[in-house]
Amino acid sequence: MKQFLSVTDVTDLPGLVDLALQLKKEPLAFERLGRGKTIGLVFFNPSLRTRLSTQLAARKLGLEVLVMNVQQDGWSIETADGAIMNGDKAEHIREAAGVMGQYCDLLGVRTFPDLINRENDYAEHILHQFVRFSGVPVISLESATRHPLQSLADLVTIREKAPVGRKAKVLLRWAPHVKALPQAVPNSFAEWMLTSDQVDLAISYPKGYALAPEFRTGAHLFHEPEAGLAEADFVYVKNWSSYEQYGQILNTDPAWMLDEKCLKVNPGAKVMHCLPVRRNVVISDAVLDGPQSVVLEQAGNRIWAAQAVLHQMLSAL
Amino acid sequence: MKQFLSVTDVTDLPGLVDLALQLKKEPLAFERLGRGKTIGLVFFNPSLRTRLSTQLAARKLGLEVLVMNVQQDGWSIETADGAIMNGDKAEHIREAAGVMGQYCDLLGVRTFPDLINRENDYAEHILHQFVRFSGVPVISLESATRHPLQSLADLVTIREKAPVGRKAKVLLRWAPHVKALPQAVPNSFAEWMLTSDQVDLAISYPKGYALAPEFRTGAHLFHEPEAGLAEADFVYVKNWSSYEQYGQILNTDPAWMLDEKCLKVNPGAKVMHCLPVRRNVVISDAVLDGPQSVVLEQAGNRIWAAQAVLHQMLSAL
Amino acid sequence: MKQFLSVTDVTDLPGLVDLALQLKKEPLAFERLGRGKTIGLVFFNPSLRTRLSTQLAARKLGLEVLVMNVQQDGWSIETADGAIMNGDKAEHIREAAGVMGQYCDLLGVRTFPDLINRENDYAEHILHQFVRFSGVPVISLESATRHPLQSLADLVTIREKAPVGRKAKVLLRWAPHVKALPQAVPNSFAEWMLTSDQVDLAISYPKGYALAPEFRTGAHLFHEPEAGLAEADFVYVKNWSSYEQYGQILNTDPAWMLDEKCLKVNPGAKVMHCLPVRRNVVISDAVLDGPQSVVLEQAGNRIWAAQAVLHQMLSAL
Repeated sequence: MKQFLSVTDVTDLPGLVDLALQLKKEPLAFERLGRGKTIGLVFFNPSLRTRLSTQLAARKLGLEVLVMNVQQDGWSIETADGAIMNGDKAEHIREAAGVMGQYCDLLGVRTFPDLINRENDYAEHILHQFVRFSGVPVISLESATRHPLQSLADLVTIREKAPVGRKAKVLLRWAPHVKALPQAVPNSFAEWMLTSDQVDLAISYPKGYALAPEFRTGAHLFHEPEAGLAEADFVYVKNWSSYEQYGQILNTDPAWMLDEKCLKVNPGAKVMHCLPVRRNVVISDAVLDGPQSVVLEQAGNRIWAAQAVLHQMLSAL
Repeated sequence: MKQFLSVTDVTDLPGLVDLALQLKKEPLAFERLGRGKTIGLVFFNPSLRTRLSTQLAARKLGLEVLVMNVQQDGWSIETADGAIMNGDKAEHIREAAGVMGQYCDLLGVRTFPDLINRENDYAEHILHQFVRFSGVPVISLESATRHPLQSLADLVTIREKAPVGRKAKVLLRWAPHVKALPQAVPNSFAEWMLTSDQVDLAISYPKGYALAPEFRTGAHLFHEPEAGLAEADFVYVKNWSSYEQYGQILNTDPAWMLDEKCLKVNPGAKVMHCLPVRRNVVISDAVLDGPQSVVLEQAGNRIWAAQAVLHQMLSAL
Repeated sequence: MKQFLSVTDVTDLPGLVDLALQLKKEPLAFERLGRGKTIGLVFFNPSLRTRLSTQLAARKLGLEVLVMNVQQDGWSIETADGAIMNGDKAEHIREAAGVMGQYCDLLGVRTFPDLINRENDYAEHILHQFVRFSGVPVISLESATRHPLQSLADLVTIREKAPVGRKAKVLLRWAPHVKALPQAVPNSFAEWMLTSDQVDLAISYPKGYALAPEFRTGAHLFHEPEAGLAEADFVYVKNWSSYEQYGQILNTDPAWMLDEKCLKVNPGAKVMHCLPVRRNVVISDAVLDGPQSVVLEQAGNRIWAAQAVLHQMLSAL
C-alpha cells in the first residue's frame, strides 16, 4: 500500500484481515521490519485509542514513533495557499508536512471536520496537503470523513465472530448523543462493509440522518428503532450528526438508545461500538456489561489492524 | 506480585530491597524480560519523578511504555456507577480501564485525593476501579493514601546508608508548607518502615497532625520540633495536611522547618525528602546543600525501586 | 566533547561536519553506542524540529529519551539562589537539575531569552545552572543567545552544496517579521561561519540591527537590502529583534523580504532558513517553492547534526 486514506487504497481486503489476525497470534513475527525507520503521528485533534494502538503496532514492527500534537505543542499551522503570514500562524502546512517528510518514512495524520461547511470538510483539505507536500506515504488516523483504521478493526472483529457458511448480517444503528459528532466512523464503517463480500449491511437511522449517497448505496436502509434488530448478527451502534442539515442534531429520542429491552428480540447478536461510549445515552449499562457486548475486544483489535496496515506500507517502501 | 498498591502486596520485603540494589549494579541484567510487553501509565494528576523513573525502569526491562495524561489529553472520565452520561464526561472508567487492559500487560495509575471528603479519599475508588475493570495487574504510581514506589526507594536508600549490626533509627518529621498536601507519602513511608524489621520508626508532628491510626500504630510519637532529632540515623522531612481536621493547614510554625540550627544536635544523621522540596520553608538551603542531605541519591533510587517492582510483576504474569 | 553550548566546545569542526555526513549515509552505524544510557530533554520553551530531530538522533544511537516540558507538565521552577519558596514555584533548579542528572547520562536544555533585560539574557543563567547542578554533560537545544545544533546543521548543508576549490560566500540577511524574535539563531550562525575556515561571511541588516560585537567581528557588514546578494553562494534569511535597542522591532520594510525580484540578480544562490518561516513576510512563496530553496534539506540535516554531537558526547562519557 502506498497510502491508507480509505478502503479503496486496499487491493486485497480479505488478505489484509487475515494479516491482522495472524499478527494478533504472533505480534513479534516482523519485529525488525521497521528497523531504522520512523513513523510520525500528527494530531490536529485529540486521540487516545488511535494514538495508543498505532504506537503499539509501530513498536511491534520495530518502528520509531514521533508524536506531534498540533494544538497542544503550540504549533499553529497556516493551510491557505498564498497566505501572507502576518497573523498568529507560525508555519505553513507546506513546510510542516515537508519537514515531517524529512524526519519520517511514514506519516499518520488525524484531522476532524469543523461540521460547519460540508463542502470544505468533505474535500479533506488538510489530509490531501500532507499527501502532497510530505513526500512520504500517509495513513489516515481519522479524517473529516473517514476512519479506516477503525473500520479495519471492526471488520477483523466481525470476521472473528461471524457465522460460518454465510454472509454476516450487520446493522449500523444510529443512537442519540449530547454533542454533534462527525460522520467519519459511520461513513467509513459502511464503506468497508459494502466493500467486503462477506457482509450484508443495513443502516437504521431517524429522518434526516441519511449518510452521503456514496456511503449508503448498496445498504438496506431502515428508519425505525426496532427495524433490522431481530435479523442482525452484529449491531454496530453509533451516533452521528446530520449530513443533510450538515452538522445539526435533529433527534434525541431515547428510543434509539440500545438497551436490554430492544435487544431482547435478538439474544444472539453481538453489540459493537468504536468507543468512547456515553453509557445510558447511546447504549445502556446492562447491554455494555452483558454477554452480547464485544466493545473491548473490538478496541483491542485496533492494534492488529494498525499493525497490518503498517506492515503493508513498510513492505511497499 | 499480582499488584502493587501497598506494602501488604510484598511477600518478601528484604528480598525486594536486595533486588533493587542488584538492579542498581546491573541495570540491564534482565533487559529482555519485558520483550513484547507493554506498561500503560495513567496519570489523573501530574507526575515528574514517578513518570520518568518508572519509564526508565520499564525500558531497562525491555517493556514498551504508553503514557496517558488524563487531564492534559482531554480525557474526561466518569467514575460513578449507573451514571447517565449526558454531561461533559466522554468515557466511563469501565471502558477506560478495560481498553487500557486490552492494550497493556501492566498498568500504573496515579490519582490524588481531593482532600475534601476523607472517607472518599481513603476508599481509593479510582485505583480499585482500575484493578477491577482493567483485567491486568495494577501498580500504584501514588494514590490518595499511599505512594509505595516512593517508600520502597526510601527503604533502599536507608538500607544503603544504615548503621551495621542494629536497627536504623528513623524519624519522620513534619514540616510547614504553603499548600495543603496529601498524607500519601508519610502514610506510606510509615507503613513501610513499620513493616521492615530493620527500622525503628518515630514520627514527630505538631498537635492535630496525627496520621490515621493504621499508619502510626507501632511508631514512637513526638510533638515537639526538637524531639527525636538527636537519636535519629535518618530524618525524613515531609509536610502533610491534617488527617483529623481533614485536609486543613493547622500550623505554619517555622520552628518545624529543618535547618542547620536544629540539625546541630546530630551531625551524623542523614536528611531525606521525597522532592520536590520548598527551600527555606521545609528545609533550609544550608541543610539541603550540606553533607547530611541524601535527597538526590534518594531520588535516583526511584529507578531501581520501580525496576524491582516491575521485575516481580513481569515474573508473575 | 564534554558539553555543547557553543562552537567553542568543538575541538575539530571539520571533523564534526564529516561525522554528520557519514551518519547521514549510515544512520545505524553506531546503533549500540548509547545502549543502557539516557538523554533527558528539558524544554523551558516549545520546540518542534529540535525535539524531533534530537529524539531521532538519540534513538539511532540506541539512547533512551526522556522529555520534560517544563510549562506543559506544570513544573514551575525557582531559579533564584536563596529564595524562600513560599510562592507558586514548587521546585528549585538545584533539585530539578540534580534529579535529572540522577536519571540521565546527558541533558539537553532549551531556554529562550525574555528579550527584556539584555544582561540577564546574555548571562545564560538557566543553562549554566543546569551545567553546574546536574553533574552530567549538557547540550544546548537553543539558549537565550545561541542555537548550536541549528548552526551545525546549517554548516553541514553548506558543506554539501558548496563550490569546490574556494571558500563559500555566505550572506546572513535580516528579514522583517511580525514578532520580536531572539538573536540566538543569527548569533550562533555567525559564530559558526566565522569559525569555519571554509566560509566567507557577510551580514546585511537595516540600521539598528547589528548583532553583538562578538558575533559580527570578522564579517563583512552591509545595510542595504540589495547588498551582497549578487555575490553570495548562500543567502541565509532570518529575522531577529534589535540587540542595541534590546528586543525591539525597529523596521518592517518589505524590501527586506527575500522575493523572486531581488533574487533575480543571483539565480545560482541557495536560499536557507531555519524554519518555521512566515511565507510572504520573510520569504516569498515563489522563492520557497522554487529551485533555489534548500530549507527542507536543511531541516533534514538537523538529525545528522544532532547525531554527530550525541556521538561525540557519548564517546567522551
